Parts: sequence; structure tokens; C-alpha cells
Amino acid sequence: MPLLTHCTLVDGSPGSPPLADAAIAVQDAQIAWAGPLAELPGAHAGMERHDLGGRLVTPGLIDCHTHIVHGGNRAGEFRMRLEGASYDAIARAGGGIVSTVTATRAATEAALLADALPRIDALIAEGVTTVEIKSGYGLDVDTELRMLRVARRIAAERPVEVVTSFLGAHAVPADCRDDPDGYIDRVCIPALRAAHAAGLADAVDGFCEGIAFTPAQIARVFDAAHALGLPVKLHAEQLSDLGGAAMAARAGALSVDHLEYLSARDCAVLAERGTVAVILPGAFYTLRETQSPPIAALRAAGVPLAVATDCNPGSSPMTSLLLAMNMAATLFRMTPDECLSGVTAQAARALGLTDRGRIAAGLRADLCVWNVAAPEELSYRIGFNPLWRRYFKGATCQA
Amino acid sequence: MPLLTHCTLVDGSPGSPPLADAAIAVQDAQIAWAGPLAELPGAHAGMERHDLGGRLVTPGLIDCHTHIVHGGNRAGEFRMRLEGASYDAIARAGGGIVSTVTATRAATEAALLADALPRIDALIAEGVTTVEIKSGYGLDVDTELRMLRVARRIAAERPVEVVTSFLGAHAVPADCRDDPDGYIDRVCIPALRAAHAAGLADAVDGFCEGIAFTPAQIARVFDAAHALGLPVKLHAEQLSDLGGAAMAARAGALSVDHLEYLSARDCAVLAERGTVAVILPGAFYTLRETQSPPIAALRAAGVPLAVATDCNPGSSPMTSLLLAMNMAATLFRMTPDECLSGVTAQAARALGLTDRGRIAAGLRADLCVWNVAAPEELSYRIGFNPLWRRYFKGATCQA
Ligand SMILES: [Zn+2]
Ligand SMILES: [Zn+2]
Repeated sequence: MPLLTHCTLVDGSPGSPPLADAAIAVQDAQIAWAGPLAELPGAHAGMERHDLGGRLVTPGLIDCHTHIVHGGNRAGEFRMRLEGASYDAIARAGGGIVSTVTATRAATEAALLADALPRIDALIAEGVTTVEIKSGYGLDVDTELRMLRVARRIAAERPVEVVTSFLGAHAVPADCRDDPDGYIDRVCIPALRAAHAAGLADAVDGFCEGIAFTPAQIARVFDAAHALGLPVKLHAEQLSDLGGAAMAARAGALSVDHLEYLSARDCAVLAERGTVAVILPGAFYTLRETQSPPIAALRAAGVPLAVATDCNPGSSPMTSLLLAMNMAATLFRMTPDECLSGVTAQAARALGLTDRGRIAAGLRADLCVWNVAAPEELSYRIGFNPLWRRYFKGATCQA
Repeated sequence: MPLLTHCTLVDGSPGSPPLADAAIAVQDAQIAWAGPLAELPGAHAGMERHDLGGRLVTPGLIDCHTHIVHGGNRAGEFRMRLEGASYDAIARAGGGIVSTVTATRAATEAALLADALPRIDALIAEGVTTVEIKSGYGLDVDTELRMLRVARRIAAERPVEVVTSFLGAHAVPADCRDDPDGYIDRVCIPALRAAHAAGLADAVDGFCEGIAFTPAQIARVFDAAHALGLPVKLHAEQLSDLGGAAMAARAGALSVDHLEYLSARDCAVLAERGTVAVILPGAFYTLRETQSPPIAALRAAGVPLAVATDCNPGSSPMTSLLLAMNMAATLFRMTPDECLSGVTAQAARALGLTDRGRIAAGLRADLCVWNVAAPEELSYRIGFNPLWRRYFKGATCQA
């Protein structure tokens, strides 16, 4: 197990200044010690040294909100829209989330896995060591579970840790259009229980929006989650203010995600409950939204801010967490420090994980070594990957 | 020399439909024949076959507008601005283009080359086979020539062709602030003549803007270019409408670039003169501009549209041409077909090159093979690189 030397350490916690001339001792896939090389305890002095050439080291990146397992893509719909087709015409051509549900239901587990792996490899190539993956394109028991099994298999196929979220309450399927409550009670909650029984769900998510589910419907899903002992989170206030974020925060949610229409009053609720605000600029960019999440108010209230790709085939076909950081800075005026803690320490918090996201003794040795001189370079560049080396559980295995 | 078989061919010309079951015969670094495999002439039937597995083949990508050679970066300024520093404070801290000029003047040729190569490698990894590189951060004779020498060396160091543009009229240097005309006459034009004498300039560019040079000053640079037999191009109408684009088109410019403030009247001038409009969404995005270039009017007028990264350390630190395509579609509503021809056939035209940018007999065998089913996937994805193989002058050498 190595002693990483000659590096500048950036911890991942908001506001931590870079520590030059640092060293990190790795033992049993964990960080045994981290600090100034000059203060290295004698117990670690004899370890095999990896000289990092003065490079910057951060925690491994964490993408805390993705829909990276899905069937098909929506490039045809993208083209039709840009060529002037109306939303009606696209819907008649089978477009929108319906097309992804159809393609996902039709795909085998092997096909879903094969489709997802190149996207996962793109994240890994940029230093991602933990990725959250949601279900939500099955909207029936079988397919929701199949998506989650694929998510679990990704962790077996690649050097990355996967955290799953059951997202049966993502959309009302076409065959339940007139009975969303029936869908929640007869499909979504039974699928959740089955996913939990199979050990496939680490958390429970929902989409609270005019085009999806009401706060009351989401609350029933959360009650079922709590009965199973599972943490909850919510897509909320993306397109309108239904009060979903505050409802979720009061229900103990780990995170609330999107938040473009979050009110100042509800920022205070998130702060009070310690709920993480997950900022998803890829969807804002792709949908050409004009109302930004209230970053200044969230910051002033002390709400932890995470940043994620929201990788999905419709509103954010994005597989670059570095680009999500740049978009959070450029479009939402988050600082480079907030962007970096947003994909490390705060992203870990959004997933309820206390063993990663920072560089400190006892945490997982998931680390990124970058060819940059200063941490702000990670969010400054657009479409450039300065990763030099990635340590996953202390090893440099790459995909 | 190979016969590429089992591929879907996308020519790069606007509006050309994909041709399935195609073959491309490569001889002496050129395309000897391209068409349906079923129509393959007997003369090529015996060649060594490369089965492309049904993949999509496009011309090699052409990034027709970059400032990829430059000293330093502006990540610190990016951070300061996001942390709330005023433009005054940033200027006092030495920010803005002045900081890049200072860093570029201070850098050796070797240092400029070492800095540029990772950015070039990022473009090559996405299938770029020709890249345009401008001077313009020297603003003195020595440094302008040094930048162009570095641009030429890139083509020797990497499997990519470089086309240079002399951009002495990029900004008024600090020591000539009160005498821009004197700068044009005593520095810029002499530097242009020296660059030409050394064989370093393939074209001449300028920046026509309130913060840079007037149309009359640019016209003097263009006169000097024409006297040397060099083609011209212009950064025009990015932040205001000074009529630079029409002036340049009337002077026979290959391209006019940016064009956010181009008037409808001047679209007609570009169409009449056959000048290419080079669309640069990276700068629009980074500067958070709100006025888009008049794409619909340019399209209606029949102006050829190219797309480029504008890779530069201030307003577009972007090294992904695929992302520039996505931004042109997402932000400016260019169609996927326009985006693809914009980085192939129309980008070649913007550089005055008739030997590339399409897939046809007699052209260079610069080709990209993609892991996608349809050409629109190239602009649909965000931060994902589906390149499977790149042929540069008929060979698969990669950086
Ligand atoms: Zn989502
Ligand atoms: Zn430029």
C-alpha cells in the first residue's frame, strides 16, 4: 500500500485551502493518514512512495444524481425539435419520456448494461469513484427491478461504487394516465417493496411536479420508504413551486434536487433540516430554462450545495461531471470552491455517506490526482479532462 | 492502403443523407473511391479490408477557429469573478487579455508548445484532423512570430494539420493604448510582413469591436494582407454592430466569426460574397451573452455556417468540438445536420481548403469512425466522446 507524496491536497470540504507539500498514507483501501509530509508519523515512513510530482489531489469525484441506466437515446427527437417539429408531432412520433420507457422495458438486462457502461467509463475517466443510479424508466415492477440489478452489476464490472435510488414515482405511465394514485398504490409501492426485499434499493426518490406527482402522492411513497427504513430524496421545484422540497426536507430527505423554483422561505427549511440541495445545471442548459435555482439564498441560508450530471437521455444527456461543475459556475454563479465540494464532500452527504468525499484518516482511499496547479482549474475548463491518476479504494485500477 | 467496408457514410456536405453499406478506398493518403459497397470498382476489390462493423463514418473534424497557443490560463480570474470581485479589481490584479499577453510574452517556444499539446490532444481524441491556430497574444513582432512557430511545430509533433492565422490586430497592447493606429502601422503590419516572409501565416485575421479595432484600422491590415497575397477573415459583430462583417465580406474574407450582432442586411452581403459565418457558442456561453447570432436569417440567406471551439483562455477555455456542436444546437438552434457540416465541409470552406471536409474521391483520407447509429448523436450528447477510430491521411496513427 502506497504513501502518496509530493502533492497539494484539497480536502473537498467547503472552504478548505489547498495544503502544499502533503502526503497521504493508504492502508487497506483507506486513508491511514493525511497531512504535511514534514509531519508524517514514523509508522508510515517506510511505505512504498508514489511521487505525485507536485500535482493536486482531491477526493474521488461523486456523481450523486444520474439516470445512467436507460434504454435507447433521444437523439432523433433532439433532431426533430431542432428541425422545427412541434411538441405534438414529437409526441405523435413516440417521443418524450414515453419513448425511453418503451425502450427500457424492451431491453434485456445485458443490453441495458452494455449501453450504460460507456457512459460509466466516461465518468470514471474523469475521476468519478462513486455514482448514484436511479430506476424510473420501467414504471412497472419487473423493469424497475431490472434497472436496479443493472446498476448493481455496474459496480461488479467497473472500479466504481454504485448507490441506487428507487424512482418508481418518476412519471405516470401511459396506461395509468387517469389514475396516478392507483399507479402509486398498485405499482410503485409494491415495486419499492420488491426492490427492497431484493436488496436493490439504497434510497427512494420521486419527481414532484405538475407533469409527475403531487406532494401528497410523493408523501405516500416516502411513508412506504420509511416503513422499510430507507432514506428519501426528491426531484423538486424544477419547473414550478409545489412545495415539494420543504415537504421532503421535513420528511428527513437526504437531498432535494433541481430547485429552480424554490422559494426563499423554503431555503430556510432545507437549512434547518440539513438537507442537501443538489444542483443540476445540465437539465437547465438543455431545456433552456431561464429561472436559476436561488444559489445566493441557499448559500446565505447555509444549505449544503452538491452538483451532479443528472445524466439522462431526455433533459441532460451529459456524462461529464467536470462540465457540470463548469455549468454550475458559469450558469448559476457557484464558486469553484462550491463546485468542487459539490462533487466531493457535499455529494457524499447527499448520498448519506460519511466514509468518503474528503481526505482524512479513516475515510476510503478514493482519490484523484490532477494535472492542474489550482483547484479552480477543474471548473474553469470546458470539455477538458486534466485527470492524471485515479485511486479507487487505494488502487490505481482504471476502467 | 485499406478498403474501409461495412460502414454508414455521412459526407459532411449540408443535407447529405447517410449512405448505408458503404465502402471507402484509401490510396496514397487520399480517398480513391467512396460509395455503396455493391458498386465497388474491380480495381479496388483486392485491397486489404477494414470492417468498420456498421459504424458511422464522417470526414475528419475541422476546428476552424482557435487561439489554442497561449501562455498561462485565467482560472484565477474565473474564481475571483465568481467570488464577487469587480471587473476593476480583476483588472488591478492584472486580469483580462493583458494577463494572457504578459504570460505569452514571457513563455519560451518550448513552454508554449508543452502547454498547447494537451489541448491539441483533447481535440485529436475527438476526431479533429485539421485545426486553425491564431497568433494574437504577443502584440509585438517577436511574440507573434513565436506563437506561429509553435503552431507550425504542433503539426510536426502530432498527427493533425495546422492552418495558421496572423492575428496581430487582436487587441491594442497596453503600451499603445492611446495610439491604436500607430500600433497597426508600426507593429501589426510589420509583424504580418515578417510572419509572411517566414512562411508562418496562412491567413490574416482581426478583431473589429469597440474594445479592439475599427473597420478602418482593420481595412489597413487587410490591404497589407492582400498585398502579400494572403486571405483574410475577421472577428466581427460579437458585442456590437460595427459593420465589420460586411466590410470583411466585401474584402473577400473567407469567414466572419462570432456575429451575435450581425444585421439582417449584412446577412445578405455574406450570402452574396460566399463568406462563411463561423459560429462560436463557447464564447457566448462563457460570457453569458443574451443576443444569439441570427441563425435563421443566415440560413434563409444561404450563408454557409461553420462551428468552432474558439479555444482561448478568457472567453472560451473549451477543447471539445463535439461540445461546440451541442452548444450550437442547444443555444442557437442549429440543426444536427448544420452542426456536422459546420465542423466538416463548411469548416474546410472557412479555411479556404478544397481538399477535405467531405468524403469523395480525390480528397484527403481524413476520416472519423463513430460508435453511433445516427449522425445527430454527435451533437445530442454532452461531454461524451463516441469516436471509435480516426484516420489521418489514411493512417490510424493516434496521438
Ligand atoms: Zn433526475
Ligand atoms: Zn477568436
